[in-house]
Amino acid sequence: MTHYAEEMARLKDSLLAMASHAESAVARSIRALVERDDALARQVVQDDNILDNFEIEVDDTAIHLLAKAPLATDLRLTTVAMKISQNLERVGDAAVTIARRAIDLGAEPQLKAYVDIPRMASMSLEMLRDAIAAFIDREPEKARSVVPRDSDVDNLNRQLHRELSSFMVERPATITRCLNLMVISKSLERIADHATNIAEDVVYLYEAIDIRHSSPKAQEGS
Amino acid sequence: MTHYAEEMARLKDSLLAMASHAESAVARSIRALVERDDALARQVVQDDNILDNFEIEVDDTAIHLLAKAPLATDLRLTTVAMKISQNLERVGDAAVTIARRAIDLGAEPQLKAYVDIPRMASMSLEMLRDAIAAFIDREPEKARSVVPRDSDVDNLNRQLHRELSSFMVERPATITRCLNLMVISKSLERIADHATNIAEDVVYLYEAIDIRHSSPKAQEGS
Repeated sequence: MTHYAEEMARLKDSLLAMASHAESAVARSIRALVERDDALARQVVQDDNILDNFEIEVDDTAIHLLAKAPLATDLRLTTVAMKISQNLERVGDAAVTIARRAIDLGAEPQLKAYVDIPRMASMSLEMLRDAIAAFIDREPEKARSVVPRDSDVDNLNRQLHRELSSFMVERPATITRCLNLMVISKSLERIADHATNIAEDVVYLYEAIDIRHSSPKAQEGS
Repeated sequence: MTHYAEEMARLKDSLLAMASHAESAVARSIRALVERDDALARQVVQDDNILDNFEIEVDDTAIHLLAKAPLATDLRLTTVAMKISQNLERVGDAAVTIARRAIDLGAEPQLKAYVDIPRMASMSLEMLRDAIAAFIDREPEKARSVVPRDSDVDNLNRQLHRELSSFMVERPATITRCLNLMVISKSLERIADHATNIAEDVVYLYEAIDIRHSSPKAQEGS
């Protein structure tokens, strides 16, 4: 392999390692919530700097690659890699938010069994895995299949938000816990948004069509 | 001017226009909230596609510029421009969220005079303006001054969150309105985060030092 090809391979390896770390952070934050495991939640918060460092590493490698006047396809691949890295870093931030709220929730009696939240987490993580796999395996079709799934997660988030709102009205003593659960649900919805962003970038990369903003994707926070 | 220099100038012009549109969207969403102006709120939601189109335009120009094997400094400027554009697009999403919540709030009696929210909006917008001005005027010091102000907005958001939580407990009938105000406050906090991201990128661009993640910036959603 030439030095250039080596550096390109290293960029992909960093992204894969970063994605696997981001996934694990989310999965552990949800396990910390469900099993009421404070130590695990604190570990997720502590480990966040690993993703921060990955982001800086990916940026540096990408800038090096861009400086070597690459082929048009590599150029796009490199800029997309930078965008994916930024999205993964934010998935990590969402995991930290979930972990912090899990710690808060661990200090009070549990409201009820968590069913919807682990389900939302599975859906979001599967979207993320598929989007990354589509990038690595050059499969725009797989990436395209991620985009419509975003609205399923949005709907679950909205449904949970409604249930928790009603619950708060009925039992004001649960307001703090309900608010924490709303933030966790919203964080999972945001992870699905990041997976969707990555998937759209992968479609753009391999099909050179910009599908961003062409679908009625739910807006941030709405 | 060479064609290359022209394209670089066009990139900056697009970003400036985009920044001004993003600012105006936030300002109008807050005005819609305070003046209970539904029509204005709906206009903010509708206009969001303008920012979406700007983002695609900036990306296209940037990719063209990168393909021309530019100088190392231009290379960094171009990748930073893409990041700024992405942050501005998300500022627009936050404005849409605020506008939607303003519409919801307009359908119910007002809880109390909005004081903290316009103040948070001013602070966040000033951070955004300074970050963009630092980029255009090549002033890393101005960009550096934006970063610590993020924690002031974080603190205001946390304070408002606490006040609204207590209010919900005292008067459960206000829960829906309080939740809408929490989302608006959180959206403003997020705009300050985007301004901080831009400022950090501008420092990196002109000082070639990566200050991202070196300060204890509050995490997303926490």
